Amino acid sequence: MITSTANAKVKQLVQLQKKSRSRREQGVFIIEGSRMFSEAPRERIAEVYVSEGYYHEHGEAALNGLKTEVLADHVFSHVSDTKAPQGILCVVKMAESPSPALVSSRNPFLLILDHLQDPGNLGTIFRTAEAAGVTGIIMSRDCVDIYNPKVIRSTMGSIYRMPFVYTDDLEAESKRLKAAGVGIYAAQMEGKSSYDQEDYGKKTAFMLGNEGNGLRREIAELADTYIRIPMQGEVESLNVAVAGAVLMFEAARQRRRK
Amino acid sequence: MITSTANAKVKQLVQLQKKSRSRREQGVFIIEGSRMFSEAPRERIAEVYVSEGYYHEHGEAALNGLKTEVLADHVFSHVSDTKAPQGILCVVKMAESPSPALVSSRNPFLLILDHLQDPGNLGTIFRTAEAAGVTGIIMSRDCVDIYNPKVIRSTMGSIYRMPFVYTDDLEAESKRLKAAGVGIYAAQMEGKSSYDQEDYGKKTAFMLGNEGNGLRREIAELADTYIRIPMQGEVESLNVAVAGAVLMFEAARQRRRK
Repeated sequence: MITSTANAKVKQLVQLQKKSRSRREQGVFIIEGSRMFSEAPRERIAEVYVSEGYYHEHGEAALNGLKTEVLADHVFSHVSDTKAPQGILCVVKMAESPSPALVSSRNPFLLILDHLQDPGNLGTIFRTAEAAGVTGIIMSRDCVDIYNPKVIRSTMGSIYRMPFVYTDDLEAESKRLKAAGVGIYAAQMEGKSSYDQEDYGKKTAFMLGNEGNGLRREIAELADTYIRIPMQGEVESLNVAVAGAVLMFEAARQRRRK
Repeated sequence: MITSTANAKVKQLVQLQKKSRSRREQGVFIIEGSRMFSEAPRERIAEVYVSEGYYHEHGEAALNGLKTEVLADHVFSHVSDTKAPQGILCVVKMAESPSPALVSSRNPFLLILDHLQDPGNLGTIFRTAEAAGVTGIIMSRDCVDIYNPKVIRSTMGSIYRMPFVYTDDLEAESKRLKAAGVGIYAAQMEGKSSYDQEDYGKKTAFMLGNEGNGLRREIAELADTYIRIPMQGEVESLNVAVAGAVLMFEAARQRRRK
């Protein structure tokens, strides 16, 4: 059992929680809690850590035969990103999808995310996207890190299942989609077409922009169609995860009817 | 200028930020920032406070002739709920709508919220609801306080414009709606009807439940129809603000076509 927060492994876990650079360099990230553990693809689990309390309560059985390191409770709390740690965390290998794979599904239904900054929004978008049948998510490199502990929590497990890729060149990526026959729709306040007047039954990608500033002009210009969500009252804009949900579920609704 | 955090007014402001009971007893709440200030209905503004820095930068002009108290910058930071205070806050009078008023609009489009706990979710629901044309929101008393500073921020001003009421008796309130001819739809995992198969052009209310546990059984039983949002993948549920958005904008879409 590891009893000191000065332990080298413990220090490394803390780095992985806090620094996206450490995660990127090592190609791994940390997930916490029983549910995220049970949903993790086994072949991607690199290391398992439990608290002393968890180990005494659940024993070996809960660990599915995986080699596990026990941390003293105070050490586990030190490593955990949550206020009330569940007592189990894993180091999991990253798995980005190669970007060509994202357009290879039978009828692609994609999201293009430009510079999203809020961890909760990104996680919620992943969760919503899986439910709506989205086949892949393309993110600009300056989006918040999907492997940030807060983002992971708010994906509710979708991080394991939703194909995604970060790109340094969202323009090139968008052009590649267009060449593959994907219609790109940008949600814009000044969009001429109401979102429910378009046909998303064919190959479709929705572009969603930064919380404060929306889509960068050069990115928005790559879209085929500007769409807007009609709004009443004095609301200037919707939360980006909400706007995304409205668009994704309209597409899902149309696709069920095909 | 107030220069001490021990000042009685300052102590009272801190109480109003932190305690829903203090807010309720005094019938007021605090809003922060230039935008929330400029959108506040003037007749509801009881007191205005600015930081010394704000006062020097913007002068009297920004204050629209309202009597204002200046706080030393460190005192303002002490009172502010945000990490980067904008330097202006107001005490605003509460204004709940009497519940009969909520069904008196021409074609009511209501939300019934049961035990919602997350401040961000509630605020986002208010913002989304205004945009979708919702005419009123009914909340069980154990929902998170709409006047919580975090909730206020995430409403983006909708708190001033969306009629709402807290009730100790959500059952009685729901029965009153039914008697007024409002169709009540409960979002339930086991709902038989897909949400897009119903007609929301008539008097409509959507019931949304607690983040972890959903709707309480006795509340859900008051609904006329259980609806579900079809989901793909392995997602068990949607975030409640997302589910609400999908339902509200489906209703808005249908109502535009009438």
